[in-house]
Amino acid sequence: MALTVWTYDWVPEGPRGFVRDLRLRWALQEAGLSYSVRSTPFDDRGSEHLKRQPFGQVPFLTDGDISIFESGACLLHLAKKSDKLMPRDAAGEAETLQWVIAALNSIEMVSVPWWFLSLSGDRENGLAGWMRMRLGQLENVLRTREWLAASRFTVADLLMADFLRVPKVRDFAASPVINAYIDRACDREAFRKAFADQLAHFQAADESKRGS
Amino acid sequence: MALTVWTYDWVPEGPRGFVRDLRLRWALQEAGLSYSVRSTPFDDRGSEHLKRQPFGQVPFLTDGDISIFESGACLLHLAKKSDKLMPRDAAGEAETLQWVIAALNSIEMVSVPWWFLSLSGDRENGLAGWMRMRLGQLENVLRTREWLAASRFTVADLLMADFLRVPKVRDFAASPVINAYIDRACDREAFRKAFADQLAHFQAADESKRGS
Repeated sequence: MALTVWTYDWVPEGPRGFVRDLRLRWALQEAGLSYSVRSTPFDDRGSEHLKRQPFGQVPFLTDGDISIFESGACLLHLAKKSDKLMPRDAAGEAETLQWVIAALNSIEMVSVPWWFLSLSGDRENGLAGWMRMRLGQLENVLRTREWLAASRFTVADLLMADFLRVPKVRDFAASPVINAYIDRACDREAFRKAFADQLAHFQAADESKRGS
Repeated sequence: MALTVWTYDWVPEGPRGFVRDLRLRWALQEAGLSYSVRSTPFDDRGSEHLKRQPFGQVPFLTDGDISIFESGACLLHLAKKSDKLMPRDAAGEAETLQWVIAALNSIEMVSVPWWFLSLSGDRENGLAGWMRMRLGQLENVLRTREWLAASRFTVADLLMADFLRVPKVRDFAASPVINAYIDRACDREAFRKAFADQLAHFQAADESKRGS
C-alpha cells in the first residue's frame, strides 16, 4: 500500500524542523518503509483539509484508502508494519504502548500547554510546577535506562524525544540525563534524514514562492 | 489471563466517580470480560507503586504477567481483546485509533491543564481561548454523527465522553450537541455499572476506616 505523509506546503521559519510530519518521516525512515510526501495549503485550511483533520493541523497519513490523523495515531498505525518501531512480543508491545501514551498524555499534556503559556514570556507560569514535577519523574525513569521500553529504541522514544528537544522545554528541564537521552535519539541516522528532508521541503517552498 | 484493575484504596469525596480506573471498568463491562479490582494506598505512594506507575497515579492494569499504566494505553490493550471496543477491519481500527489519540492529545491536552488552571477560580485563564476553539471543532464533528469512529460506539467514545463529562468542562462547553453526546455515552449500561462500582469501592473504604 502506498504510504503518503501530508504536511503543509509552507510554514514560517520558526517551526521548521519541528512540524510534526517529522515524526512520521522519522518513523518511516526507522522502519525502512518507502513513502512520499504531499502538501496541503498552510494559508488556506479549507473544507478538504478539515475533512481529513478536523482540528486544521498536520500531519495526516494516507495508507491506500485509509486516511488517519494525529501524529501519535499515525505512529501506532505505522508500528503495526514494522517491528523496528515496536516489538512483537506481548510484554514489549504493552510496554511500548504505555510509553507512547505516557509521552502524549503525561508529558506532552503538560509541556505543550506550558510552552504555549510561556510564549508570553513567563516560563514560571501556572503550569510550571506541574511541568517540573513531570520532568523530574521522567528523569528518574531515564536515569536507569537508555530507552523507555523493552530495552531498545521504539516509537515511544521517537515521540518522547521529539518534544523534549523543543528548545524551551529542553532548557527548562536543564537535565543532563534528559539531554543525553535527546542526543541519543537525535543522533540516529533516521532522525537526521527526516530532519534534513523537512527543512528541504520548506526551503523548496520558499524558492518556488520566489520563482512564481 | 486474569485481568486486574488497580486503583487507590481510598480517595476524598471530590474525585469519586471520576478516578480513571472507571475507564477500565467501563471498557471491561462493554467487552464483557471478567476482571477483579485491587487497591494501592492513596496516602503512601511508595516505591512499589512508582515501579508500576512512575508518575504516582492510577489506574494500572495487570494482565497475567503484564503490567501496564496510562488509562489510554490500558484501553488500547483491552481493545485487542474485544471487537466491542474497536472494530477489526483496517479502516475502522485506524479511525478508532485516531480518535483515541485525538481525545488524549487534542482535547484532553487542553482541557486538563485548562481545568487545572481554573481551580484557582479563573475559567477565563490563559488556555480558555484554545479550549473554546477545540471544543468548537469537536462540536462540529459531533454535529453530524452519533459516535466518533466507524459509525458505532468504540473505545474512542468511552475516552472522549469520560472527560467531557467533568462538570467544569461540560459547563464551559455549554453545547447541546456535546451534552447529548455525553448523555448517550453515560446512559450505557456498562458506564452505569462501572460508575456505581467505583462509588461502592470508595464507600466500602470509608466504612472500613470507620470500623477500624
